[in-house]
Amino acid sequence: MVPLTLAEHGTLAKARLPAVIWDFFEGGAGAEWTARANLDAWQRHVLRPRVLVDVSAPDSGTELLGARLAAPLGVAPMAYHRLAHPDAECATAEAAADTGTLLVASIFASRTLEQIAAAAPGAPRWLQLYWLRDREALAALVRRAEQADYRALVLTVDAPKVGRRLRDLRNAFALPPGLTAANLDPALTSAAGRAAPGRSGIEEHSRQQFDTRITWADLAWLRARTTLPLVLKGVLTAEDARLAVEHGVDALVVSNHGGRQLDGAPPALAALPEVVDAVPAALPVLVDGGLRHGADLAKALALGARAALVGRPVLWGLAHGGAEGARAVLDLLREELLDTMVLAGRPTLADLDRTALGPWPPH
Amino acid sequence: MVPLTLAEHGTLAKARLPAVIWDFFEGGAGAEWTARANLDAWQRHVLRPRVLVDVSAPDSGTELLGARLAAPLGVAPMAYHRLAHPDAECATAEAAADTGTLLVASIFASRTLEQIAAAAPGAPRWLQLYWLRDREALAALVRRAEQADYRALVLTVDAPKVGRRLRDLRNAFALPPGLTAANLDPALTSAAGRAAPGRSGIEEHSRQQFDTRITWADLAWLRARTTLPLVLKGVLTAEDARLAVEHGVDALVVSNHGGRQLDGAPPALAALPEVVDAVPAALPVLVDGGLRHGADLAKALALGARAALVGRPVLWGLAHGGAEGARAVLDLLREELLDTMVLAGRPTLADLDRTALGPWPPH
Amino acid sequence: MVPLTLAEHGTLAKARLPAVIWDFFEGGAGAEWTARANLDAWQRHVLRPRVLVDVSAPDSGTELLGARLAAPLGVAPMAYHRLAHPDAECATAEAAADTGTLLVASIFASRTLEQIAAAAPGAPRWLQLYWLRDREALAALVRRAEQADYRALVLTVDAPKVGRRLRDLRNAFALPPGLTAANLDPALTSAAGRAAPGRSGIEEHSRQQFDTRITWADLAWLRARTTLPLVLKGVLTAEDARLAVEHGVDALVVSNHGGRQLDGAPPALAALPEVVDAVPAALPVLVDGGLRHGADLAKALALGARAALVGRPVLWGLAHGGAEGARAVLDLLREELLDTMVLAGRPTLADLDRTALGPWPPH
Amino acid sequence: MVPLTLAEHGTLAKARLPAVIWDFFEGGAGAEWTARANLDAWQRHVLRPRVLVDVSAPDSGTELLGARLAAPLGVAPMAYHRLAHPDAECATAEAAADTGTLLVASIFASRTLEQIAAAAPGAPRWLQLYWLRDREALAALVRRAEQADYRALVLTVDAPKVGRRLRDLRNAFALPPGLTAANLDPALTSAAGRAAPGRSGIEEHSRQQFDTRITWADLAWLRARTTLPLVLKGVLTAEDARLAVEHGVDALVVSNHGGRQLDGAPPALAALPEVVDAVPAALPVLVDGGLRHGADLAKALALGARAALVGRPVLWGLAHGGAEGARAVLDLLREELLDTMVLAGRPTLADLDRTALGPWPPH
Repeated sequence: MVPLTLAEHGTLAKARLPAVIWDFFEGGAGAEWTARANLDAWQRHVLRPRVLVDVSAPDSGTELLGARLAAPLGVAPMAYHRLAHPDAECATAEAAADTGTLLVASIFASRTLEQIAAAAPGAPRWLQLYWLRDREALAALVRRAEQADYRALVLTVDAPKVGRRLRDLRNAFALPPGLTAANLDPALTSAAGRAAPGRSGIEEHSRQQFDTRITWADLAWLRARTTLPLVLKGVLTAEDARLAVEHGVDALVVSNHGGRQLDGAPPALAALPEVVDAVPAALPVLVDGGLRHGADLAKALALGARAALVGRPVLWGLAHGGAEGARAVLDLLREELLDTMVLAGRPTLADLDRTALGPWPPH
Repeated sequence: MVPLTLAEHGTLAKARLPAVIWDFFEGGAGAEWTARANLDAWQRHVLRPRVLVDVSAPDSGTELLGARLAAPLGVAPMAYHRLAHPDAECATAEAAADTGTLLVASIFASRTLEQIAAAAPGAPRWLQLYWLRDREALAALVRRAEQADYRALVLTVDAPKVGRRLRDLRNAFALPPGLTAANLDPALTSAAGRAAPGRSGIEEHSRQQFDTRITWADLAWLRARTTLPLVLKGVLTAEDARLAVEHGVDALVVSNHGGRQLDGAPPALAALPEVVDAVPAALPVLVDGGLRHGADLAKALALGARAALVGRPVLWGLAHGGAEGARAVLDLLREELLDTMVLAGRPTLADLDRTALGPWPPH
Repeated sequence: MVPLTLAEHGTLAKARLPAVIWDFFEGGAGAEWTARANLDAWQRHVLRPRVLVDVSAPDSGTELLGARLAAPLGVAPMAYHRLAHPDAECATAEAAADTGTLLVASIFASRTLEQIAAAAPGAPRWLQLYWLRDREALAALVRRAEQADYRALVLTVDAPKVGRRLRDLRNAFALPPGLTAANLDPALTSAAGRAAPGRSGIEEHSRQQFDTRITWADLAWLRARTTLPLVLKGVLTAEDARLAVEHGVDALVVSNHGGRQLDGAPPALAALPEVVDAVPAALPVLVDGGLRHGADLAKALALGARAALVGRPVLWGLAHGGAEGARAVLDLLREELLDTMVLAGRPTLADLDRTALGPWPPH
Repeated sequence: MVPLTLAEHGTLAKARLPAVIWDFFEGGAGAEWTARANLDAWQRHVLRPRVLVDVSAPDSGTELLGARLAAPLGVAPMAYHRLAHPDAECATAEAAADTGTLLVASIFASRTLEQIAAAAPGAPRWLQLYWLRDREALAALVRRAEQADYRALVLTVDAPKVGRRLRDLRNAFALPPGLTAANLDPALTSAAGRAAPGRSGIEEHSRQQFDTRITWADLAWLRARTTLPLVLKGVLTAEDARLAVEHGVDALVVSNHGGRQLDGAPPALAALPEVVDAVPAALPVLVDGGLRHGADLAKALALGARAALVGRPVLWGLAHGGAEGARAVLDLLREELLDTMVLAGRPTLADLDRTALGPWPPH
């Protein structure tokens, strides 16, 4: 089967992966209401096509925090790509670079920051961080990121601990032997490698290592250690968006962590407008969660997102086809976006404004 | 199977219980529209998480009518726990005490008030009453409740008679031989022990014993016989909430009796805001009906409830595991509530205000 | 099986009746959207129960155009009860009389007006009419109705022809040999007794005999021939309700003919408020279509109906149990209504006003 | 089976056609959201029937751009009727003429314009065009259309390229050998006759031949070459409707191309009101997409459409019964429309105004 949709990449991946790993990738927190709502939220908007517009040269290219991208698209930070494929983050980095996509590497990457950078020299990449209790480890990562030409730091703020993901609890999910977070002292992540029945190694590990006390005031500590732009990921309210602006944050990612943290949180797309409306137009707002088609990306842009991140589908491509599979996923998304821009008579990203959408069902 | 959700406790209980008893616990009135709506109503609200808040010490503790609770949670009054487990209400009382949960004992308990009190000395407990035609029996119960250190009386006002529960009518449900209401003269409840085809012993009994004539004016009779706070359970309208305030009631439980009385009544959560808005802020308003997750409890609090009661899930735990099963259910609810508070960046109960919720679907 | 719900009466009837006759009773026009919507419309309202009201003597009795009824309930006019049971309309009349229910006999009854009257002397009954092209036949019916003590004429105005009922077309439905409209010249209805493939005898007959030219002005002709009150059945709009008032009509039945005429028409319950609001409070407005529970009747009354008619369920009772079956259906409806009034704390019909309902889903 | 509904014609066609051709007819773009929404959109309106209106002579006849039609109905332009039946467009033309229906022939007809005209001399017909890169070919078609008495040109503006139709990609759909666009140089459409795995010949062909640069300004070129009225098909917004008026367009077809172009576009019926409201009352606005019943047509007219086009169902009739099958489909639609007009008490097209509809669900 040649996969014609992102969903079909998922089907191929599911056939290839051990069920426990599929569940780790696919699962959300609790009853997975938010994970499902992420997928459904796009259907609350219809696309209003314009006609008799010159669409001979649709242009999806954009710039984001100084980096040139072929489309307003990035790979969301996800832990341990090695679970999907032996080539791990290096393959993902290659796929991202080949397709002009931003790569956001996870603090829990299974390859070193330097290996990932070497796999795609010159390509735009950011580093995602959880705020660890061990501030020295955090500071060391920031230094290495700067040296390896990562262009921004993405601080995930929706995870004072890992959410209660029932699939992982049922599977007593733990990292397989030999798989570690390549950028951290193994001692720091050893808890992720074992789990008692009804527990998740990943969740236990987060309880030990994540700092649950940090507040807005702590951002200054991080700022003092780097000149890199600071992106907050996991903001879902206008209140926090305004606080982020006050604290000098450089960009936001509206996200519910793919439905993996607070079950019952709104789909990211539904929270996007209140965040966009709360910040200055110049501040880039990104969104992730449930993006499965280029038309979804068009809708996110029309609601004010500067770009979107895509997560699970990249792992699907990676799982069944390595770098080539991940590339196919990213190519397909961009192809679908261009197709949408052509058929909607909106050949530039600027044309994808709020007039491009109507409510569904209609008021 | 280690039950990871309240629903899984239900699965274990269903496998253990005779179908006729499962049906008695599970069934609602009529087409069970209200019973189902109770379960669905929570999904009409999303949780709006805040970020970069110190969540290292989430605190679910509260005080309710003078009693200290580990969480704003009580066991709803339910008849005849003996149907679920031989240890009956004594086991439930133990589980409630161990977990810092309020116990609301039913007038139709299968253990005496004194036995229940002895099972958990010092723990907070209330006594629920139906208004029996036999006022002497009622007065006697009130005296015994005071002596056994029950801290409030909960008068159920949505049941001038037991609702038309089709499962019980189909099963010709009656109490098994030897099971009686331990706190009442056996003659008073004998009708509950037999049922003609197509009839319910419980419903017949209510027709004989419940007083259908009482009105607001009669509350004075009860007031004159006790110094205990008086809680009305079963209020679903602003009109009645205002009358309750006028008549000096001490607290309200917004409830449709788990969908077991008037089928077609609104889910309790949907009625909660109009009741909260109709009474002074100092008057505690509780809610019950369909609570199946700690996040549900967080939503009830955000809508203005001071606490919530949980019913069937406690019987599920009791049915498959006795006191330990009931304890697991109550522990899980509190653990889920704390998890929700942490992940929502709302570590105190005061943080769970109306800004914590958004409408779903969005307006 | 003792049927505990109207739906269970339907199950018994379906098991007993030939499929072609079941389909004739059950079927709606077109895709049966309106027939289904009739059933669903009740769930758009919740019942708001009041508490601490004396409900010891709920009273469902009412008067309608001078007739005393045990409940605000009538049997809707339906053709050919003989298709359901050999005792036909005489059994239905007996059941209605025994339960204090209004009987609306159909112009296409399979028993004579006089036989039906004799089966239940003294009981309240109305006669339903289609406006036949043969005005003499119509005038003769009016005279006989007066003599046989029918108390009102119900003119069905939603049927210039019978709707396109696909089940009947598929079944090539025609009246069985020997079954005729007992009150009309057999020549008038002979077309109903045969059908070509893909056609319905009933529909063909209506094309031949129904007068498609009558307008509001023609009501004067009928008025001139009788002193009986005139009821219009099939009004669904405020515009027509106002015209009815202008033309001196005595009562209205808001109805879409059980979904058997215009598929796509609104459920009758949804149209009820605009009709009630368009006429003087003194003018009785009835409703029919999809009533399947006493709580439905309570909702209709709360929206301003003076009474409701029930159709198919009466034929279900008749089909499986003759007069006794029909009586069980009508008894059950009244019992459910009283149960609803008791549990809703609204023991009189006057208590069932618009405060008794809330919208669902909530605004 | 005598088909009683358009859907049943579809069932017969599906049984007869090769799956690949059925898929080509039936398929929409992407996830087929818009294709399904087209079918569902009609249920967002109920029909408000009037009573006591003379409906003895319902009249569905109308005039459209000077042509007399038996009903406000046309056959939508569809490519290659030869895929459905050997008699191809000639049979369709015959069926349209016999039933007083407008025929809109496709630029990709499998019979010549002259053959189609000869099959139904004197009947009203329009010619649909895509704007080909080869302007000489386009100009030649316009000249032939005038000579063969086509009465209007319908320029499809929602297709700068053919949409991404997954069924065709999966089937590697290409025109069968020997089937060509009879009105174009075979070289122009040769790409449609072959497809690599995962590609569609039709889509490839559109990429080669359709002009993606045309804008409103280009309409003048077409205008200069013909005196025929110009109809734009594929307008879904008020903005474009206003531009069309400014550019002197003679009529509009509100359409999403049967859900085959931009998946996520609104159902045409939902877009109809904003287009109708944006143009002068005298400008004919047509609609197509998802029409499956005469009542749908009544709803379209009530929302302001002057006529509607029907597509797939005509091919269904053609596929299983040639000209006779197509005629049965068009007859049935008109019969259903008249039935709706009679039962709704709206016997003229003028009666089908916005008072004929109510929102569903009700506000």
